Amino acid sequence: MSQISINHDEVDIVIGALQLDLKSFMEEWRPVFSLFHLIIVKDPDLKGELEIPAGFNFDLYTKSDIDGVVGSSSNAISFSGYSCRYFGYLMSRKKYIISIDDDCIPARDSAGNFVDAVSQHITNLSTPATPFFFNTLYDPFCKGADFVRGYPFSLRSGVDCGLSCGLWLNLADLDAPTQALKPELRNTRYVDAVLTVPARTMMPVSGINIGFNRELVGPALLPAFRLAKEGNLRWETVEDIWTGMCVKVVCDQLRLGVKSGLPYVWRKERGDAIESLKKEWEGVKLMEDVVPFFQSLRLSTSAATAEDCLSEIAAVVKEQLAPANPVFARAAETMVEWVKLWKRVQTQ
Amino acid sequence: MSQISINHDEVDIVIGALQLDLKSFMEEWRPVFSLFHLIIVKDPDLKGELEIPAGFNFDLYTKSDIDGVVGSSSNAISFSGYSCRYFGYLMSRKKYIISIDDDCIPARDSAGNFVDAVSQHITNLSTPATPFFFNTLYDPFCKGADFVRGYPFSLRSGVDCGLSCGLWLNLADLDAPTQALKPELRNTRYVDAVLTVPARTMMPVSGINIGFNRELVGPALLPAFRLAKEGNLRWETVEDIWTGMCVKVVCDQLRLGVKSGLPYVWRKERGDAIESLKKEWEGVKLMEDVVPFFQSLRLSTSAATAEDCLSEIAAVVKEQLAPANPVFARAAETMVEWVKLWKRVQTQ
Repeated sequence: MSQISINHDEVDIVIGALQLDLKSFMEEWRPVFSLFHLIIVKDPDLKGELEIPAGFNFDLYTKSDIDGVVGSSSNAISFSGYSCRYFGYLMSRKKYIISIDDDCIPARDSAGNFVDAVSQHITNLSTPATPFFFNTLYDPFCKGADFVRGYPFSLRSGVDCGLSCGLWLNLADLDAPTQALKPELRNTRYVDAVLTVPARTMMPVSGINIGFNRELVGPALLPAFRLAKEGNLRWETVEDIWTGMCVKVVCDQLRLGVKSGLPYVWRKERGDAIESLKKEWEGVKLMEDVVPFFQSLRLSTSAATAEDCLSEIAAVVKEQLAPANPVFARAAETMVEWVKLWKRVQTQ
Repeated sequence: MSQISINHDEVDIVIGALQLDLKSFMEEWRPVFSLFHLIIVKDPDLKGELEIPAGFNFDLYTKSDIDGVVGSSSNAISFSGYSCRYFGYLMSRKKYIISIDDDCIPARDSAGNFVDAVSQHITNLSTPATPFFFNTLYDPFCKGADFVRGYPFSLRSGVDCGLSCGLWLNLADLDAPTQALKPELRNTRYVDAVLTVPARTMMPVSGINIGFNRELVGPALLPAFRLAKEGNLRWETVEDIWTGMCVKVVCDQLRLGVKSGLPYVWRKERGDAIESLKKEWEGVKLMEDVVPFFQSLRLSTSAATAEDCLSEIAAVVKEQLAPANPVFARAAETMVEWVKLWKRVQTQ
């Protein structure tokens, strides 16, 4: 699958452990994960010992490590549940980070071949993105593809790719109401394509299966948006949706690309969507304000780094969204704290 | 393939005949084309009698018909070569128009099944489009698909679809330099997806394989942009690229959608890209001005129909582009003529 040569020393695979038994997860991924350095972060709410099979090169971070680094410097940032992975992003010093949920195993493509999700993410991240004009034959840097007639030559060199968003077969990434309404719905369509999401187009980024260039956009992958009653089921969360829109705005501002499509992973069943329905649909409701906010957001020309952009975004969130709902005030505060933390830890 | 019931009386299939012998083309398409009314327009530069097999329901238009309708009212509009099909668009009174180049035959999908391109275009056109937020699982109205987590419910009803842009297997739609540089390159990747091209994102629309809603955007499909040395080979032309950007701007203004992806057709070999290289690369160079122009174009809120939008676009082309190159002055003039002609013929 990979058309590029991968420098394994440039990659960290970050795994947020939301369950103690990682054995079957890691065995399924062994052919890929055993080639890379792993950062495993144990959900600080999880009690007991992680079960990790032998033969992997990894650093493990637990609640005591988190407390040691973050300490009393922030009450705002939470690394609970899905958000534990962000601590791994903070500790990494590699160029590329790949992160895959611990309930996902390798998918198979239409021909039945094992999908090496990590190689595909690295391919996406290390080939140019084309956010300023849509190529109808999808990623022109895929093998066998090119730019179509009418594509300006001046735009064909593309720009650096900041974020690669992979997809999921089997259990699709739906919200709780949709999952509850269509309990039998499974995603079986393997779409053999990667595309650059155009500049100024917003999208719902899922944190299930992503890769990013830490040096370019690292601080934008941040645990800022947390619902009061959020659980450990993806369909109840929106933290990654918020984060994804932050990254997209940062990429648009810095003239970087965001790709979506391949690689797929296979999502196993977890949780009960009907149970989730009994909780408030807070996340679903909040999107009605969050999406138009990010669509209309424009940063000042002086915002030249991801950290600059995040500080500006936080200020506008505080001004425009926070008066309507305290969840936005907390998000703005957390973003400010995170940028401080990122700068401190990354310069240590 | 089709998930919708098609009213055959709502559809015209328009074929521009650039070659006299349509027998093999139409036999290949017989299972589909025989179900619909066809409009065949003979390239007015083509000498001799068209060969059309029996068993089709069609109207044929030739140079004398074109002269009879357009008469001396316009010197600006040319229906030569690929542009002959626009006369068919002008004469149609149906809701949907499908147009496929006469060097294309039905493709086969990954499972080897015959692709009914017409049904897929009608499906694309008669299901909503979602231009205001990108759905990572592609068209949420495809069978088995839905909106992903984070997609605002207020945007899920979508908007009407104005244009459906299909793709091509085998000979891809490349420009002459690319085709000449990579003479062996063939498109073999069957991407099983339809997506809405986001609002305000420009794209190079190919006229090879398209469908559109004539009632919504019909007049925007117009033969305005014609190179002096343009031939009868796709890779030498840019008329459809210009037209496509006009349609996209109209759709963005009228809050309509443009879809791209399925259906594929199979493009056969025609012409010699190396020969084309000896001509001027005028089209390729012009795209460097055309694309930024359409990207930054914003119409006034009073432009509420496709005709209004086109008149405004023509005025801005005349003002901003025409001083640099007479090809733009001719395009602006032709657009004005076309809108007049469209209004006259369509109200007859």
